[in-house]
Amino acid sequence: MADHFADRLTEAIKSKGTPAIVGLDPIYSNLPKQIIERKDLNDETDVEVAIDAIMEFCTKVLKTVAPLVPAVKINSAFFEKYYWEGVEAYYSVVQEATALGLEVIGDVKRGDIGSTAQAYANAHIKNPDFLDMDGIDAPDAITINGFAGTDGIIPFAETATEQGKGLFVWVKASNPSANILAEFANEDGQQYYEFLAEQVATLACEPKYLGSCGYSNIGMVIGGATAEQAQTLRQQYPHMLFLVPGFGAQGALASDCLEFCKDDGSGALINASRSIIYAYDNPQYQGQYGDDWVKCIEQACVDMKAQLSSANV
Amino acid sequence: MADHFADRLTEAIKSKGTPAIVGLDPIYSNLPKQIIERKDLNDETDVEVAIDAIMEFCTKVLKTVAPLVPAVKINSAFFEKYYWEGVEAYYSVVQEATALGLEVIGDVKRGDIGSTAQAYANAHIKNPDFLDMDGIDAPDAITINGFAGTDGIIPFAETATEQGKGLFVWVKASNPSANILAEFANEDGQQYYEFLAEQVATLACEPKYLGSCGYSNIGMVIGGATAEQAQTLRQQYPHMLFLVPGFGAQGALASDCLEFCKDDGSGALINASRSIIYAYDNPQYQGQYGDDWVKCIEQACVDMKAQLSSANV
Repeated sequence: MADHFADRLTEAIKSKGTPAIVGLDPIYSNLPKQIIERKDLNDETDVEVAIDAIMEFCTKVLKTVAPLVPAVKINSAFFEKYYWEGVEAYYSVVQEATALGLEVIGDVKRGDIGSTAQAYANAHIKNPDFLDMDGIDAPDAITINGFAGTDGIIPFAETATEQGKGLFVWVKASNPSANILAEFANEDGQQYYEFLAEQVATLACEPKYLGSCGYSNIGMVIGGATAEQAQTLRQQYPHMLFLVPGFGAQGALASDCLEFCKDDGSGALINASRSIIYAYDNPQYQGQYGDDWVKCIEQACVDMKAQLSSANV
Repeated sequence: MADHFADRLTEAIKSKGTPAIVGLDPIYSNLPKQIIERKDLNDETDVEVAIDAIMEFCTKVLKTVAPLVPAVKINSAFFEKYYWEGVEAYYSVVQEATALGLEVIGDVKRGDIGSTAQAYANAHIKNPDFLDMDGIDAPDAITINGFAGTDGIIPFAETATEQGKGLFVWVKASNPSANILAEFANEDGQQYYEFLAEQVATLACEPKYLGSCGYSNIGMVIGGATAEQAQTLRQQYPHMLFLVPGFGAQGALASDCLEFCKDDGSGALINASRSIIYAYDNPQYQGQYGDDWVKCIEQACVDMKAQLSSANV
């Protein structure tokens, strides 16, 4: 397996033939009734029971999507709400996904400066070889918050790189108030997110971060971009990997998302979370597969790949 | 005890007679040799041993500073680096600080949008009454990252408010690359941090967030401000509480920090972390108290209060 995150990811995109990835945002009350109505899993107020239910769900989702997609994004927030027990479960899900051959992105959005940024990097992107925690590895990449600029990013970037891992720096969010901030412009008409993207990209193209595939292991999260914004970012930063959230439930269009990919299909990951993992709530799939919730998820994932594939023609 | 975070905090500042607060950023290798050279605590690679050492340290620091300051800030990153075991220790420290009558700020800098922001809010600022976790409460307030603007803040703000708790939204950081971003200006000359501060302050002065003291439970973290910037923010936003990091080791001056306080001494918290908790490494205190590391910390805290007090005259 390649030692550089961008090389591994680029190989995985090629081998699975898609930039589609699946996000795991598990919420107990949204889980299939076949799980939460089971007597041993039917108590949301019991932390261990709730986590067992979530683990059962995540394990099945991972096995279902592993043959189909290059990577999964695991959202830490939905585990952290169960305190330390949830954090332990998060790492179990990371290990399971890794064992299935998936590239694993820990969606943790951490960000700070100085020694705190270094502590967060040690916590989230460094394999804990320095501790007696056999069998636990950090994810292949994490998302971070770029609010403090490059010197808040460097501790994460250096730690990730030493470990053959990667980062996606959150540069643009899709929600309305984030747009108000992201589109705050200077007198040259440059928007804040463009300015932040430039800062991140300048760091990311230092030779020590580039893989043999030409991409950097330091990428960006870009939400809510228009097709034109996506084209511009793709052209300006040929060495950048983009993580594009919001396909499906959040309404991003396949054709817009695909502007982040190069012609050979590399260079971006397009994430859908709820529209895939909760596909059994979608009347379309209920009609096709009834109570077979696993089949609903599989078909939604297949359909997402097809949508992205046909939009790319 | 007051049900509104800003009321409790304002009372605590008055009763302790200082805006000084102490930040706990515990790093094993920096702990007093009396702790880490103890046979049962002398193994940094054993997670349980490392955490026991950190807990022993934090417990002594909290007991020492509790009579002196209104609040402590507990930095989650330094606990998260020990994975779930560290997260459990973080909550133990939060409980100990609360039991000592301190207002407790969890420095977690979380930030995201939509359902993820809500999950982080549930994880970090909501007492887990909905789970079977007796005796665990969330901190009185947390720091969050304002990158996604007000609709990323609202889930935290509403959850905090329901619980009588507070937030400090990170609006400006002190490091050089954060300044490059924060000082990115629009054509009216308004800087990005000023624009973000305006967004946060507009939300924070909604009546539902205001305590009877006149302050909102939604405050801001402002690092690296000049005296002039501090004066401007204080005047523009009379209902805002400011959390000011960087006193001591990071070099912020007492006189500059105090510009965030009103004439009656209310309205701001001035945090020092390393210069207080590692005061036993400072030759000045070593000379005075030798190996009595607890006394060094106590004196550093007393001295910080005096510095802020004399600069205020």
